[in-house]
Amino acid sequence: MPYVVVVYDVEADRTRIMLKFLRQYLVHVQNSVLEGQVTEGDLEAIRAGIDDRLEDGESTIIYHVGSEKLLDRTVFGDDPAEDDQFL
Amino acid sequence: MPYVVVVYDVEADRTRIMLKFLRQYLVHVQNSVLEGQVTEGDLEAIRAGIDDRLEDGESTIIYHVGSEKLLDRTVFGDDPAEDDQFL
Repeated sequence: MPYVVVVYDVEADRTRIMLKFLRQYLVHVQNSVLEGQVTEGDLEAIRAGIDDRLEDGESTIIYHVGSEKLLDRTVFGDDPAEDDQFL
Repeated sequence: MPYVVVVYDVEADRTRIMLKFLRQYLVHVQNSVLEGQVTEGDLEAIRAGIDDRLEDGESTIIYHVGSEKLLDRTVFGDDPAEDDQFL
């Protein structure tokens, strides 16, 4: 299954909107970073949802690998994914 | 060559320190996100440099794939990597 990391840069008063949407599919691991394993269907929904919500001057990047096994993840400091503050 | 995406979450008054260090190796593409192709040596230097600079309560994640070909990157809105504001 695909594994994605999504980073977004939106106006401060709109982060809640993007986060609420993305959290339906992904784990929130840092201020504007979410990640997780998704189905191809989820990935299409994520793309469409970002497109719908993004406004001029804002940006979002999806980093996508075919499988979690292809991605090495090193965490320094607190691992946000294990920290319920972000879940 | 390895390709990495680094996301960091540090105290506001310390972002300059982390950014200045990471920019030696990577392209700054979003507020606390940098990416790029690196040598194994660079990767070790990045790991050590993050370790040296991180303080309690802060976190940094390195997402690392063996080759840029394994990573699909979709940008919505302005592509920061093409925007000199971030280079």
